[in-house]
Amino acid sequence: MRKRTLIFKNKPKLIATATVAGPKEGIGPIGEYIETVLDDDLFGEKTFEKAERKMISRAIGKAIGNAGLEERDIGAIIAGDLLNQIISSSFACRDFDIPFLGVYNACSTMSEAFLIGGVLVDGGYCENVLCATGSHFSSAERQYRYPLELGNTRPPQAQWTVTGAGAAVLSAEGTGPKLVSATVGKVVDYGVTDANNMGSAMAPAAMEVTCTHFKESGLKPEDYDLVVTGDLGAFGSRIYKDLMWEKGFDIGKCHVDCGEMIYNIREDEFQGGSGAGCSAVVFNSYIYQKLLKKQYKRVLLVATGALLSSVSSQQGDSIPSIAHAVAFES
Amino acid sequence: MRKRTLIFKNKPKLIATATVAGPKEGIGPIGEYIETVLDDDLFGEKTFEKAERKMISRAIGKAIGNAGLEERDIGAIIAGDLLNQIISSSFACRDFDIPFLGVYNACSTMSEAFLIGGVLVDGGYCENVLCATGSHFSSAERQYRYPLELGNTRPPQAQWTVTGAGAAVLSAEGTGPKLVSATVGKVVDYGVTDANNMGSAMAPAAMEVTCTHFKESGLKPEDYDLVVTGDLGAFGSRIYKDLMWEKGFDIGKCHVDCGEMIYNIREDEFQGGSGAGCSAVVFNSYIYQKLLKKQYKRVLLVATGALLSSVSSQQGDSIPSIAHAVAFES
Repeated sequence: MRKRTLIFKNKPKLIATATVAGPKEGIGPIGEYIETVLDDDLFGEKTFEKAERKMISRAIGKAIGNAGLEERDIGAIIAGDLLNQIISSSFACRDFDIPFLGVYNACSTMSEAFLIGGVLVDGGYCENVLCATGSHFSSAERQYRYPLELGNTRPPQAQWTVTGAGAAVLSAEGTGPKLVSATVGKVVDYGVTDANNMGSAMAPAAMEVTCTHFKESGLKPEDYDLVVTGDLGAFGSRIYKDLMWEKGFDIGKCHVDCGEMIYNIREDEFQGGSGAGCSAVVFNSYIYQKLLKKQYKRVLLVATGALLSSVSSQQGDSIPSIAHAVAFES
Repeated sequence: MRKRTLIFKNKPKLIATATVAGPKEGIGPIGEYIETVLDDDLFGEKTFEKAERKMISRAIGKAIGNAGLEERDIGAIIAGDLLNQIISSSFACRDFDIPFLGVYNACSTMSEAFLIGGVLVDGGYCENVLCATGSHFSSAERQYRYPLELGNTRPPQAQWTVTGAGAAVLSAEGTGPKLVSATVGKVVDYGVTDANNMGSAMAPAAMEVTCTHFKESGLKPEDYDLVVTGDLGAFGSRIYKDLMWEKGFDIGKCHVDCGEMIYNIREDEFQGGSGAGCSAVVFNSYIYQKLLKKQYKRVLLVATGALLSSVSSQQGDSIPSIAHAVAFES
């Protein structure tokens, strides 16, 4: 019988990260931890799509620099994003002389990239890999929902797609937080069809992989300083805690959601941040720095993804979701 | 300095495959090698998108059965497809109690999945993994180009997206062709902007990774019975051979393109097959069976992907491309 939790015996080190985010993210609670905060979310480009790509490219370049490495030292970039055909990542990788593996598990792409990157480094296939993702409010909004010009009203269960990108270098050598294990998620679908309520759709997938991680690793919630989900938002986070409680795990004391951390949430407007950039920015800035300073000893990152497209919704499908859990130790 | 060619010391075995394809593919030169040929490319579904998903799901289920395994034996499905947000793969994986890693490198997804799956098995992280992808002419046509109802004329450099899916089980134990190495591709862009001429856009990426594979592995074209590209088509294949010749490698005797093998090509209509399903169907049917019978001893699969989206084309971008090379031995 297979185990879904991969143990990294050589404990790849997270030797450097870089984050880029928009002005709205910059004035949020973790704004001071973000390396590059933009004045303008177009980032000097003509379209939001090109701005998103430039953020990912900038994060990749900065992370390599922060690691003290050159492009030729990086065995692979593992990256993906929310735009159709992950063009932001593919075009960003055109800027670098580095092999590219495109991945996509919606907003759980950051943890998926850490998982695959961890295997490449831990197994001795690459000395260094770079994991990256990002998203942009305006490109996501017009691709998934409505033209921005409509000024559409947002329902109370909606979240706000993060404008930002994060990149991290995993290395066989060096110092930094260690990637010790990863639990591969599976597709979970509780039948939620409201594409404005992704926290509800994704919470069961987060629960399923977190429970599997605890059972297979023998660890308990109290072993972690933080069990941090990607972008469940305030409402989804409550559902996640309830579902975990039903399964016998009390994560009330250690759980927080990146979507709840990134904005000064005005509850009547939205449930918090979402998007692949949400966990990418929060984990690679605030949480990484807390791990570096050993203020957190153990962190489980459970980035969550809703695997819908506008076509699947239009054809009447519910929203399958996934989450991968990756465990770091300082 | 990094090497881009990963060596699989434990040589994961390709213990089983499965293929599903449409009626047009079924009457082509390799039709008799395809396991399931559909009478109707809607496959009993109401939409082409749902038919595509069902083909991938069927291929996955059949491959597990052909391997004599159960769902619980498979450590991960590594899959992706051409539809926005890779919904065909994500929804197909909802049918199985198996962890899922979504990948996307356009039509090079089959070789990308083999590469990542190979690392998971070779490194001892999974006993068995399943690699899958697929495409559908009608869902691709209406997503990337025009509504089918328009009956749009196709230019002479165009290719025909394959309706089909392929899946393969890589295993640490068992018998079958062995995956011995893989060279990770990088994004290459020679500035081609004609989205109807993807063979030209992708040929340089195929050349780049093939040359890197030969240089790093010390192998020569004559060491391979077949250097098989994914979907360059007739025109792209000629460009690829010319580019390889310029770099000092004569692959004229061992090169063939899956897109040239799958249809009875009437040259005035199209350049051959394309799509993620093209290499997935050809490799996992005809080529796999030739490897099994040891009629081929060494095959290098170089599936090729054009990393564009309709948005990137509309915003004036050229077509970045990628190809990954995976080497099998019988």
